[in-house]
Amino acid sequence: MKPVCLVIGAGAGIGGNVGRRFAQEGYHAVLCRRSDEAGLDRLVEQIEEGGGSATGFLLNAIEPDTLEERIAAVESEIGPIEVVVFNLGAQIGDRSLRDTSYKAFEMGWRMATFALFRVASAVCPSMEERGKGTILVTSATSAYRGNAGQHSHAAAMGGRRMLCQSLNAEFASKGIHVAHILIDGAVDAPDTLGKMLGPERFEALRESRGGEHDGLLLPAKVADTYFHIAQQHRSAWTHEIDLRAFSDTAWWNH
Amino acid sequence: MKPVCLVIGAGAGIGGNVGRRFAQEGYHAVLCRRSDEAGLDRLVEQIEEGGGSATGFLLNAIEPDTLEERIAAVESEIGPIEVVVFNLGAQIGDRSLRDTSYKAFEMGWRMATFALFRVASAVCPSMEERGKGTILVTSATSAYRGNAGQHSHAAAMGGRRMLCQSLNAEFASKGIHVAHILIDGAVDAPDTLGKMLGPERFEALRESRGGEHDGLLLPAKVADTYFHIAQQHRSAWTHEIDLRAFSDTAWWNH
Amino acid sequence: MKPVCLVIGAGAGIGGNVGRRFAQEGYHAVLCRRSDEAGLDRLVEQIEEGGGSATGFLLNAIEPDTLEERIAAVESEIGPIEVVVFNLGAQIGDRSLRDTSYKAFEMGWRMATFALFRVASAVCPSMEERGKGTILVTSATSAYRGNAGQHSHAAAMGGRRMLCQSLNAEFASKGIHVAHILIDGAVDAPDTLGKMLGPERFEALRESRGGEHDGLLLPAKVADTYFHIAQQHRSAWTHEIDLRAFSDTAWWNH
Amino acid sequence: MKPVCLVIGAGAGIGGNVGRRFAQEGYHAVLCRRSDEAGLDRLVEQIEEGGGSATGFLLNAIEPDTLEERIAAVESEIGPIEVVVFNLGAQIGDRSLRDTSYKAFEMGWRMATFALFRVASAVCPSMEERGKGTILVTSATSAYRGNAGQHSHAAAMGGRRMLCQSLNAEFASKGIHVAHILIDGAVDAPDTLGKMLGPERFEALRESRGGEHDGLLLPAKVADTYFHIAQQHRSAWTHEIDLRAFSDTAWWNH
Repeated sequence: MKPVCLVIGAGAGIGGNVGRRFAQEGYHAVLCRRSDEAGLDRLVEQIEEGGGSATGFLLNAIEPDTLEERIAAVESEIGPIEVVVFNLGAQIGDRSLRDTSYKAFEMGWRMATFALFRVASAVCPSMEERGKGTILVTSATSAYRGNAGQHSHAAAMGGRRMLCQSLNAEFASKGIHVAHILIDGAVDAPDTLGKMLGPERFEALRESRGGEHDGLLLPAKVADTYFHIAQQHRSAWTHEIDLRAFSDTAWWNH
Repeated sequence: MKPVCLVIGAGAGIGGNVGRRFAQEGYHAVLCRRSDEAGLDRLVEQIEEGGGSATGFLLNAIEPDTLEERIAAVESEIGPIEVVVFNLGAQIGDRSLRDTSYKAFEMGWRMATFALFRVASAVCPSMEERGKGTILVTSATSAYRGNAGQHSHAAAMGGRRMLCQSLNAEFASKGIHVAHILIDGAVDAPDTLGKMLGPERFEALRESRGGEHDGLLLPAKVADTYFHIAQQHRSAWTHEIDLRAFSDTAWWNH
Repeated sequence: MKPVCLVIGAGAGIGGNVGRRFAQEGYHAVLCRRSDEAGLDRLVEQIEEGGGSATGFLLNAIEPDTLEERIAAVESEIGPIEVVVFNLGAQIGDRSLRDTSYKAFEMGWRMATFALFRVASAVCPSMEERGKGTILVTSATSAYRGNAGQHSHAAAMGGRRMLCQSLNAEFASKGIHVAHILIDGAVDAPDTLGKMLGPERFEALRESRGGEHDGLLLPAKVADTYFHIAQQHRSAWTHEIDLRAFSDTAWWNH
Repeated sequence: MKPVCLVIGAGAGIGGNVGRRFAQEGYHAVLCRRSDEAGLDRLVEQIEEGGGSATGFLLNAIEPDTLEERIAAVESEIGPIEVVVFNLGAQIGDRSLRDTSYKAFEMGWRMATFALFRVASAVCPSMEERGKGTILVTSATSAYRGNAGQHSHAAAMGGRRMLCQSLNAEFASKGIHVAHILIDGAVDAPDTLGKMLGPERFEALRESRGGEHDGLLLPAKVADTYFHIAQQHRSAWTHEIDLRAFSDTAWWNH
């Protein structure tokens, strides 16, 4: 039986590419996303055409019990979850304090912080029992510093990072590898960034970054590092790592 | 008319002492706490006996509208709020992931992160209009690193710190001074730490820290620095500062 | 006998203003700088005219034994050093790696890192014996993040910050208060920044920052916080603090 | 012609293992270490027996011109250096300030900070011309926080980290990948840690960490991640990463 890699937030960017990569390497990929059933089906098909195996589920992470029930069902119906890729974003663009509603602030937390807590609460007991497991958490610059207009996102991502550290502190010695992966730049993802910017601005951004269209983070390349981290021997685990394109500027610079 | 210093979380530790200090220096202290009306009345009396002025309110920060209504009422009935001391804690002691309920995790966020967002949303528009204001935020080591058993607290405090940075990024240039004050150690507060530990263990902790009973953070001394930060000239504002007792160990050491 | 405040790097900016402030508050200020004897004499006179007392010395901190001998002489001839303000800078402007000579790189370290080690080695034994003392260390953004062209400065200041933390770890419990003060922005200092930029660009910078000429760090206002930190009760000491003008951007933002 | 991987500090721990790993993957490993010619020869032989190729050099990094001349000679006689592994340590154990001589403090800087500056100054111009190159820098916990007794080491490593960030800021967009790799724990290296502790304490440490003798960082496993980072596509480069054994405690915890 193949080990299972569960991706929460498996769109056409990092999540989908990481799922595909694990599938190529012999995992069964369980791909969860909120919407776009057609896109999800296509992703599963592509994986299968490439000789891998995958299952897709639509799932609204904000709703109660969705994550918990999906995890329980995967464990009982598909197999033990060896790797979780937690890839839910909560970026809503820059908004002044006045324009950040209580609801938006709370949604940020529900997606970026609480959903991770729910996922960890659901998978850690089984992983602990099995003495092994990996939780790869996609994170954002806002986990390291708040910025104007990032009230909701920064509060949510700051919480996510500290939660990762406290999960690591409790579970590393029990064999569960938690990694916080800082995606410190724009991702070449037509689904999310492309939609947010519109096709023209997205193309302009791509061009502006130089290189041969690799001045944005290419999700398939990001996936290489996710896979590497999941394969690290337990005597040399990474807890925090950053990733950005060569032509981009690190968050601490300007 | 005296300038107003509003303290959210005015117990017998840092909150009450900071309120008293501002009152001694000519502010009208508005002291809010969740419970212990008798203790609150005593604090107001002590301030008045010392020649200062203060008003006390019981307030449950978790409930909707409480913070917002209190702030509106203070502004209209007492006077413009010049300084907010946000002093709500969310420490629930060390709990394993298994023993951290969804409710406890959410309560941490409601107290430590969301309540600050609500307070900022309520006071910043008036402060911005007046071109000045100060928000002093008490914070904890868990804002800097997660630790075993600190899942709820670390996620909430990490969110608090990043929120402070994004508030600062939006509002500093508009004259609002936001400061994140890391209390990196145990506070000599009979009300909170004393109750949590019980009298014997509390006394033993005090003794163990050396000095002349000043090996824990003395809240009246902490208040000196809160007051200083609120008085800093706007050409030299502090956004982040740490405080700990001389005989204690910084969080980054062991 | 007055307590002594020794300022290493007492120019017309932060160092001189901090020295003046301590002198106003009853300390004897010992002011050391590398050059400009006339400026040094004027500073001493101004302090004396204001009713304070001060002594000035020219001192080349790069030369062997200069710091050590000055400290020994002050202790034996003037009085016990209660406060050291270590204010040597090592900013040489942005230089590419190619344009950063070995000599420049080493000079940065000698001024910004090694000189602090020498000063600490010279004053800590006496302070430890007396069970008290304060070392206030001016630091720069480069202590927190390297930037293009800052090879020498960032390496030197990063070393300075870690040295401060290790001094604090050894000496806080022995009564020596070490504080690392991040000056995160341009200082309104005609002597240093003014000379580096020239009068026109300096004035233009001042104007661009808004406010009433307080969009740069005003050294006299910075001095208020230096003095406060030196007066903190040992139950509530600050080890790290940042300072910047209200209209400036924190280093972690852009 | 094989690409060259130059290892500065190629002992029996991380340096030697990383060199061996790159040799296995098709690089020519150039291995430099200060002493133990027999050990160096053995390492080269092992690599050759495994089908790889390597050259060994004794080199005293403290001496002037040694690093510069070796780099020039490798470039002209062996081939273009594609990867540099900078692996010089400067840990001298815990020493009080009183017991840290000026010479020890300076040696720390010469090994841990200045030698990296010299290496970067020597290799970056050629790498920049070729539009590619990788510099992998081994670092230590002391780069992130000073600790009692770590005056020399922390100052040197703090400088190293900030230097890495400023090299990255200048050279990433020119195709040079600089990575700062935090080895946050004890390495299972008989040569260095083993010698420092002596065989009995070393064995006791190993036992105490649990696992199947993998509670210390195994250098061959560490090498996997060094190799991965050097292979990252330039659209997804890591600048900072940490590594520690699963059963160890992260530096920010206690």
